[in-house]
Amino acid sequence: MRIAVDAMGGDFTPATSLEAVVEALDMYPDVEILYVGHKEKLAYYMEKMRVKESDRLKIVHAETVVEMGEPSTTAIKSKKNSSITVCATLVAQKMADGVVSPGHTGAAVAASKVRMRMVPGVDRPCIGSIMPNVTGKWILADAGGNTDCTPLNLAQFAVMGELYAQYGLGIKNPRIGLLSVGGEDAKGNELTKATFKILSKMPINFIGNVEGHDTFMGGCDVVVCDGFVGNVLLKSAESLAMATFQWINKAFRKNALRLTGALLAKDAFREIKAVSNFEEYGGAPLLGLNGLCIIGHGSSTPKAIRNAIRVANEFAIANVPEQISKRIYECGIEKEVYAEKWAPMLEKTGGL
Amino acid sequence: MRIAVDAMGGDFTPATSLEAVVEALDMYPDVEILYVGHKEKLAYYMEKMRVKESDRLKIVHAETVVEMGEPSTTAIKSKKNSSITVCATLVAQKMADGVVSPGHTGAAVAASKVRMRMVPGVDRPCIGSIMPNVTGKWILADAGGNTDCTPLNLAQFAVMGELYAQYGLGIKNPRIGLLSVGGEDAKGNELTKATFKILSKMPINFIGNVEGHDTFMGGCDVVVCDGFVGNVLLKSAESLAMATFQWINKAFRKNALRLTGALLAKDAFREIKAVSNFEEYGGAPLLGLNGLCIIGHGSSTPKAIRNAIRVANEFAIANVPEQISKRIYECGIEKEVYAEKWAPMLEKTGGL
Repeated sequence: MRIAVDAMGGDFTPATSLEAVVEALDMYPDVEILYVGHKEKLAYYMEKMRVKESDRLKIVHAETVVEMGEPSTTAIKSKKNSSITVCATLVAQKMADGVVSPGHTGAAVAASKVRMRMVPGVDRPCIGSIMPNVTGKWILADAGGNTDCTPLNLAQFAVMGELYAQYGLGIKNPRIGLLSVGGEDAKGNELTKATFKILSKMPINFIGNVEGHDTFMGGCDVVVCDGFVGNVLLKSAESLAMATFQWINKAFRKNALRLTGALLAKDAFREIKAVSNFEEYGGAPLLGLNGLCIIGHGSSTPKAIRNAIRVANEFAIANVPEQISKRIYECGIEKEVYAEKWAPMLEKTGGL
Repeated sequence: MRIAVDAMGGDFTPATSLEAVVEALDMYPDVEILYVGHKEKLAYYMEKMRVKESDRLKIVHAETVVEMGEPSTTAIKSKKNSSITVCATLVAQKMADGVVSPGHTGAAVAASKVRMRMVPGVDRPCIGSIMPNVTGKWILADAGGNTDCTPLNLAQFAVMGELYAQYGLGIKNPRIGLLSVGGEDAKGNELTKATFKILSKMPINFIGNVEGHDTFMGGCDVVVCDGFVGNVLLKSAESLAMATFQWINKAFRKNALRLTGALLAKDAFREIKAVSNFEEYGGAPLLGLNGLCIIGHGSSTPKAIRNAIRVANEFAIANVPEQISKRIYECGIEKEVYAEKWAPMLEKTGGL
């Protein structure tokens, strides 16, 4: 499989992604890399790090880059020759099987949507994110791709989350929950109440409404929500994890006894930090596209980017995009039938 | 000040709230308590714990109780003689200055809205919740009172949060942020984009959009959002805090060295647990009502209930409800002018 890696996006120089690319080529023998960015800059880093172009590693030139502070639409308006747009175009033209970008999430979403488009049946793509809980891992869908959603979007995110849990976490029949303000069926806002009615009728393992308490404490494999809520959940959890380590640090430095305790248990802290460091999980796929795009955190480490390349490779082999399309039709929630099949039911029962 | 305490709500027996009441009477000499619940049950616990009625402690009979699993509307439909509804009625009839309920949040909101009604200018009440960050504390508004909100609601929550930060945290000029998916002005969903325009024109210390990363890591004193998002944020954070302690527990039990370290630093853990135990913060006020209602967690400890009684007393003395009404008019966001003053501007600029 051939993966296009956006070398220019993110908070770091191409040195970071190049380290990841070299490792990936070594660890995954069936992977080829198209390394996308300004050719002179990339050549500079490759020479510096003594990496040579080969059958499995080729530079593809992209004149510009969408900077982290720029609006998402820059990728498809003023900077059509940016590294992320070139990456998405390579997939659209079947020159690559997937994209990995450790850069601007919004720009990656915009470029991928416009260049790759959706698979048949899908209305909008969703960002799937792997999160930890006390017994293992769970999928947050949508983790921030869409700020305003319809019940159809959420129903489709449930299917995309289901497939991500199957291919990404190896869970055969994932338990899918709808994120709400309480576990009872009637709880929720207008959007989730309407979505609940659709999910209840789909051939999936729908366990009903779940609430915030059910996320990190376990019990649910896929948590479905709109991208606004998902983004807030993800970022506030990251923020609480960081704050907790600051509180721990402060509390342990208060006296010599505690400090000694902390030193003895040093690797325990390292372990816990690894669990709650969501950024290390190897990037979040943009699901529902006619192609693959794995988005990394702007401050992705080489390990995180290498993991993202692995995920892109695995998803390309399993042809996850086609699986999603197939499953959307199986569940009868393709966008073409929504107005006719679902909307009247929702209207009749007072939903959206 | 006279505070009505709902003795029947919550996960525990009246013994828990009675312990809190006895402590409160001892610690706050200006407080009187109306202890509301089934008189025979309360008499039983009072005799058992050797507590007597007095000038400052009177039993008020309520025939029933809204159980934790029942719908919120039970409080105002089938169980109008429930403890929470009797409490709210006491305030409406000026027989009490505030309510403290460690019970069913939805029932407390429903009973308070119907019996006490809003202060002039306010459209809907909001639950304010005190949360920790690395430098101190912040207010989440709305923490779960309203699942579907308008821009007017959110603008009013900003004012209620401002006053809660002033009276509850002692912050003179609180920094107010609008919870969104990024810090840039243009980021958000339809609701927050429209709300942003109103907040920008209000005489408050509006610092613009904030995101999940800004919550527990600090930088903002009042975080404004709809109650669906607030509820998810609050509960998922509680869930992550609980999960983190399980991860810590597991990691520290892996070998003798780590266990020794943990034992040496035992009180450090107790300190961190206290910071991240949101439930201990003494209840969440329902703001914007023509009266006071402080809602505790269903599993509130005596200390949490006692704190809630203290807060109710302080807010009654400061007359927070009237302050809120005054400030809503000062900011020009009373519900009566919304359609005429704000809605046309939002329409013109593409907002809600």
